[in-house]
Amino acid sequence: MKKIILTGDRPTGRLHVGHYVGSLSERVRLQNSGKFDEIYIMIADAQALTDNADHPEKVRKNILQVALDYLACGIDPEKSTIFIQSMVPELTELTFYYMNLVTVSRVQRNPTVKAEIQMRNFEASIPVGFFTYPISQAADITAFRATTVPVGEDQMPMLEQCKEIVHKFNSVYGETLTEPEILLPSNKACLRLPGIDGKAKMSKSLGNCIYLSDSEADVKKKIMSMFTDPNHLRVEDPGKVEGNPVFIYLDAFCRPEYFAEFLPDYQNLDELKAHYQRGGLGDVKVKKFLNNVMQAELSPIRARRQEWEKRIPDVFDILKEGSKAAEAKAAETLRDVKASMRINYFDDDSLIDTIED
Amino acid sequence: MKKIILTGDRPTGRLHVGHYVGSLSERVRLQNSGKFDEIYIMIADAQALTDNADHPEKVRKNILQVALDYLACGIDPEKSTIFIQSMVPELTELTFYYMNLVTVSRVQRNPTVKAEIQMRNFEASIPVGFFTYPISQAADITAFRATTVPVGEDQMPMLEQCKEIVHKFNSVYGETLTEPEILLPSNKACLRLPGIDGKAKMSKSLGNCIYLSDSEADVKKKIMSMFTDPNHLRVEDPGKVEGNPVFIYLDAFCRPEYFAEFLPDYQNLDELKAHYQRGGLGDVKVKKFLNNVMQAELSPIRARRQEWEKRIPDVFDILKEGSKAAEAKAAETLRDVKASMRINYFDDDSLIDTIED
Repeated sequence: MKKIILTGDRPTGRLHVGHYVGSLSERVRLQNSGKFDEIYIMIADAQALTDNADHPEKVRKNILQVALDYLACGIDPEKSTIFIQSMVPELTELTFYYMNLVTVSRVQRNPTVKAEIQMRNFEASIPVGFFTYPISQAADITAFRATTVPVGEDQMPMLEQCKEIVHKFNSVYGETLTEPEILLPSNKACLRLPGIDGKAKMSKSLGNCIYLSDSEADVKKKIMSMFTDPNHLRVEDPGKVEGNPVFIYLDAFCRPEYFAEFLPDYQNLDELKAHYQRGGLGDVKVKKFLNNVMQAELSPIRARRQEWEKRIPDVFDILKEGSKAAEAKAAETLRDVKASMRINYFDDDSLIDTIED
Repeated sequence: MKKIILTGDRPTGRLHVGHYVGSLSERVRLQNSGKFDEIYIMIADAQALTDNADHPEKVRKNILQVALDYLACGIDPEKSTIFIQSMVPELTELTFYYMNLVTVSRVQRNPTVKAEIQMRNFEASIPVGFFTYPISQAADITAFRATTVPVGEDQMPMLEQCKEIVHKFNSVYGETLTEPEILLPSNKACLRLPGIDGKAKMSKSLGNCIYLSDSEADVKKKIMSMFTDPNHLRVEDPGKVEGNPVFIYLDAFCRPEYFAEFLPDYQNLDELKAHYQRGGLGDVKVKKFLNNVMQAELSPIRARRQEWEKRIPDVFDILKEGSKAAEAKAAETLRDVKASMRINYFDDDSLIDTIED
């Protein structure tokens, strides 16, 4: 059986370093591992519209930004199919039929949906499209016959719901859909990067993100203003590394070789942490080191982004070609789905006979 | 503005005389009135699947039966476009986007949905597809830019929900969709025909329907076994006409000229009712008259049905052509919808520029 990846992002903003360590770098690694036959990366505009129906321009304007971020990180259109969700209408048709296989109460019990509803303060006014997005997500995954879905642990309930739909469909209509497996990030430390203000979640509205598209100066400014240990007032005070964004970022981004390059007084991150914990190491020194690390990590990404920004029509062609290829794949699955449901009345002459009761 | 009708039926069984007096005869009248520019008659298989996902063959097998019933009643494919819902995938795409404009609690408040859920004993296990069918119905109506939807009074809340979606869409994305109007049946007496057992609803499972495809002998047998006034035991007893199926059927089907032809002792239905009410008129006599009336009404329908049954491939061609025409119309509306939402990224070059934030 082919090994196929489906993954993606909602285009509601440019991607930030949290996306990078949490999923983008992993995707590039998987892409270049040679272990996968097909990789589909979806810019989930239709899903983003489920709770942004009133301001679609926010979604629209970020499609290209997300595509640029992908290309900047090393997603290679020769190896991965980047596509726009709404350009594959087959996904809505699959969603429509899968909706018959899931009960309202089952969706209500989905822990991810529950959490998202709370996070968005939706309560009674949840849009139906948002409420049912686990079903739409099952359509996305199964349309590409994905075997592997690399997502965070918080997405586990979504994958479970998708598997249930696959089982239900296959048991009612006969073996048709492929069951996906979740692939959790290899580096647990990278699961969720806090904002530069120490808040658990990076968010555009809080202004606490470092974006992949930020300039060198912006990155430096953000790092130098980063929240650290609030009790680490004087250099000689002992400091905390747990929950300290500067060290969490170093955990995520620092490679051993950066010490020789930028901070040769220390052998490795453990030595640096120990010094900070016993006192005598100032925040500014650590932040300067983090800035050097981040610039080293981000500058090739930034450079690639700037190259692609000069070639916008080419980016559009990549999206166009990717969407075309994705649609062809989804159409194949939809054909199988409709054949299994025997609702392909005009494709199969035998349905003319059996149709007479 | 063009006057356009959208109407249809769920193919979960052959159509019966209740459908005929309640809607089919009205449709034929509207079709032949010359007052409408376009008429779309939808065999709603996709909607039927929302609560028949486990036995799609029931839906599939009845598509042809419903088409034959349409043609038998006088629906003329030259004047009306008969099509199969699932053959118009644009409807699922419209549904998908409309789902973002309706809240879960709004659907829960829909009285028709509430009643249907109760009728089907769904309670907690309502399929999501069934729960959201008012939204799908709004897609059906607006896809064809229907101005006129001829349905029963019980469907009023569905039309209201459709209008709300139209308003919401047009106010968020700009004037795009056409607002439909409900067209209630002209003959209130015909609104709902009871079963031959006197039960309010005709249903296949209760075996209390007279089908348009029933043979002459079957119709006679069913009429002669019809429930009447249970207190009208002897011919001389006074009888009740209210709630008496035999008289309700006569109200719906009898024309004045049938008295001269089949029961010249009476001038009209009022005389017949009066005699029954004062006593001295036996059920068998009234039933024999009803049988003559029904045979006179149904025999041309039956004859046309038998003709079409010999031409099944032609019926399939009608459905195929109709579905093609319906898809072309729906695709046009979908294009407008996506243009208004500005998610037609590849059709409109200007989106490339504005996409750069």
